[in-house]
Amino acid sequence: MKTYLDCIPCFIRQALEAARHVRPTDEAFHRRVLNEVCAAVPRLPEQLSPPRVGEFIHGIIRRETGIDDPYAQAKANNLRQALAFLPRLEAWVRQHADPFEAAIRVAIAGNIIDLGANPDFQLEAELDLLERQTSQLDALEPLRNALEDAEQVLYIGDNTAEAVFDQVLIRQLLPRRVFFATRARPILNDITEETARQIGLDADATVLSSGSPIPGTDLTRVTEPFRQLFDEAPVVIAKGQGNFESLSDAGRPIFFLFKVKCEVVAALTGRAVGSSILYLGGTMRKSLSAERASTPQEA
Amino acid sequence: MKTYLDCIPCFIRQALEAARHVRPTDEAFHRRVLNEVCAAVPRLPEQLSPPRVGEFIHGIIRRETGIDDPYAQAKANNLRQALAFLPRLEAWVRQHADPFEAAIRVAIAGNIIDLGANPDFQLEAELDLLERQTSQLDALEPLRNALEDAEQVLYIGDNTAEAVFDQVLIRQLLPRRVFFATRARPILNDITEETARQIGLDADATVLSSGSPIPGTDLTRVTEPFRQLFDEAPVVIAKGQGNFESLSDAGRPIFFLFKVKCEVVAALTGRAVGSSILYLGGTMRKSLSAERASTPQEA
Repeated sequence: MKTYLDCIPCFIRQALEAARHVRPTDEAFHRRVLNEVCAAVPRLPEQLSPPRVGEFIHGIIRRETGIDDPYAQAKANNLRQALAFLPRLEAWVRQHADPFEAAIRVAIAGNIIDLGANPDFQLEAELDLLERQTSQLDALEPLRNALEDAEQVLYIGDNTAEAVFDQVLIRQLLPRRVFFATRARPILNDITEETARQIGLDADATVLSSGSPIPGTDLTRVTEPFRQLFDEAPVVIAKGQGNFESLSDAGRPIFFLFKVKCEVVAALTGRAVGSSILYLGGTMRKSLSAERASTPQEA
Repeated sequence: MKTYLDCIPCFIRQALEAARHVRPTDEAFHRRVLNEVCAAVPRLPEQLSPPRVGEFIHGIIRRETGIDDPYAQAKANNLRQALAFLPRLEAWVRQHADPFEAAIRVAIAGNIIDLGANPDFQLEAELDLLERQTSQLDALEPLRNALEDAEQVLYIGDNTAEAVFDQVLIRQLLPRRVFFATRARPILNDITEETARQIGLDADATVLSSGSPIPGTDLTRVTEPFRQLFDEAPVVIAKGQGNFESLSDAGRPIFFLFKVKCEVVAALTGRAVGSSILYLGGTMRKSLSAERASTPQEA
């Protein structure tokens, strides 16, 4: 998807949050980052997907601070938290009447660990919701059908700690061969190849970097092996709104698994903000120009 | 209050909403306004109160469109809607055990008619809440006490249709002499002297322009008669968040009556977003730098 005008105020809010995350008490720094992002807005081509703009924002922060991975500590904390939940998640999936569906839900719940869109996520509360949440898993049967004859699955990861939850779902995909794709480098709190191996994802999946340096998947910059997998894998599962934003018009069917985090994506998918969705997309061509997204936050 | 960094993304969202309000289908215009506001951010002095920035934004829209009062139609529609409610409001106040408190609640309910902060307000739903709302009228007894010996009240208006609700409260202030102050010119959907007279506010109050051209009260630009009233009136009541934002550090006690519309003002007042409050302030000196406001909207 392109960057809609509604995305602009949201980027600016995210830039402020990111600046505060990296240097909590340095207000002059916060203002510099905000000013630099605002000054760049008139030059942003609107064809850029939102995660491309995210890369730009985090590039400013990296340059201004000289810190290559400002989220290292946050990622480590989130990861510890997620790993502590793992036994409960696995027990919940095991005792569920439909373990595959349960694992899908666990994987979506993991998507709340997103410092970009939701810095104050509450994992414990979210997990309590697992039992009673009314997820919109519209594409559950299509996914089951697609998996029936599939020998390979490309699974595109998202945030670091979220991958712990992804592993629960990946185990439900075995004995198919699963390829787990990561970002090319640290960006926001997204997962890298190195961390995926540390978590032990390579016990169940072939871990590879997609080559994408954005908090999403930039198909113009992926590696050749990833591109081949992306084109040929019978089933592609992509986690997180960043992957949706960058792959919604990729030209092939993709099972997107994420929590809808803004009104623009809510309008594009027809699902409410906050919904946990399994959504079959990837071939989007429709524009929001008519059905303009509104930003309902009060002022 | 000064403009906090958290206000910046909010301004940009408001600029987009205002541009869409004025020319709903002209996306090139929306982008031009957004670009111009973003480009100006690095030059905004942070001592400016948020309504001063609002004046700047609406100045861009006025200049770009050549339309002096882009909200004329919206104001007329809101006004018609508010006038249709008036009999119900008056009946509700009359039958209330404490008509003064009831009129305070009515006046606050009118504050939701604010296109700047809340373009999709739902008057009917809000009025239903009147019966059961738990307003935080902390300053109700102090206001009663202050009114006890007061012969004059300065009442600073806010939005156009809201003034219909204000009149219900103003009638409770009689037989004291009430001065009702308006903006100097059309800005957003705020009330002007001319409209206040058309509504018939001058039957109960002395209507005057404050001289302020911003969606709030800019004390550096008010008229001499207003300034004198402001300095000498034993009781000042100011409606709406814009008046709070511009008068919170005015240096005299003011009874602010409004619905809290953002996290920054929530942090400054200690009241939750969405609260209807009667708040005694005007002498604020504390800064938010430590207790930084967060913007909770998701991304």
